[in-house]
Amino acid sequence: MLTLGIDPGTAICGYGFVKIEGSRLKALDYGAIQTTPALGTAERLEVIFREIDQLLKLYRPDKLGIEQLFFNKNVTTAMTVGQARGVILLAAVQNSVPIVEFTPLQVKQSVVGYGKATKEQVIYMTQKLLNLTTKPKPDDVADALAVAICTAHAGDMKAVWEGKV
Amino acid sequence: MLTLGIDPGTAICGYGFVKIEGSRLKALDYGAIQTTPALGTAERLEVIFREIDQLLKLYRPDKLGIEQLFFNKNVTTAMTVGQARGVILLAAVQNSVPIVEFTPLQVKQSVVGYGKATKEQVIYMTQKLLNLTTKPKPDDVADALAVAICTAHAGDMKAVWEGKV
Repeated sequence: MLTLGIDPGTAICGYGFVKIEGSRLKALDYGAIQTTPALGTAERLEVIFREIDQLLKLYRPDKLGIEQLFFNKNVTTAMTVGQARGVILLAAVQNSVPIVEFTPLQVKQSVVGYGKATKEQVIYMTQKLLNLTTKPKPDDVADALAVAICTAHAGDMKAVWEGKV
Repeated sequence: MLTLGIDPGTAICGYGFVKIEGSRLKALDYGAIQTTPALGTAERLEVIFREIDQLLKLYRPDKLGIEQLFFNKNVTTAMTVGQARGVILLAAVQNSVPIVEFTPLQVKQSVVGYGKATKEQVIYMTQKLLNLTTKPKPDDVADALAVAICTAHAGDMKAVWEGKV
């Protein structure tokens, strides 16, 4: 099974593809889509949509995992992240890729085994589980890979975690 | 000039096309795209994207007007409206339709002539200015028409109101 984890944003959108083979996890590809503030918001969203669409067509993941954002405290951030999230969800639907949503707690639980793990612990365990020689950077990429791992693990517990978004 | 005003939302997305001929305004078409909660969020966003895309291709408006949302107080609402806004802005860019953003104050100022006008005053004046025999319903449609009027008026004051979104 191949999963794609996304950490949505307009300036930086992290993505990570994780392949699960038996009990082994492997990072197939990961990176960050970065857009310049020289573009208007709408044009930046178009870049994100186009690049995510290309990645979905290239790798054809079995699932796309993304974090729920209801826990975000800042209204302006919630709206701009929502805009990026909107075009990503659209790309997934247009490519018939099922979407799975997770709370930050579920991601931490899945990657570190502890729902109150720190950001550093999540990044450390993500690197460890995927056997990466260097720390994935920026943090958005590490976050996306953590969500991809969570999505891969969630395959076994469909009834519990998978739901409509 | 033909403008399209949008009041974005996932459940109900209001739209209104307003044509300006000399000093006269005319509502060319207006309505609400409604999506069922039986669909997942991503599928609902896809419906909104598809219908807006069709409307843009059908009428080819000169400008798309939309309200800024930084004034929205609820984080969850800001995120879900942001998602709808994201796919609408994407449709506009893909169809090469310029986007103009307005604050609620600018819309009220433009339609009623008073930035602190009530919602009822805005709806009343929208109906009056467009010479509609009945009140546009639901409110999302009236709001979209008000934004379309504001966008039409703003054509004369490009330097002041038009900007990057």
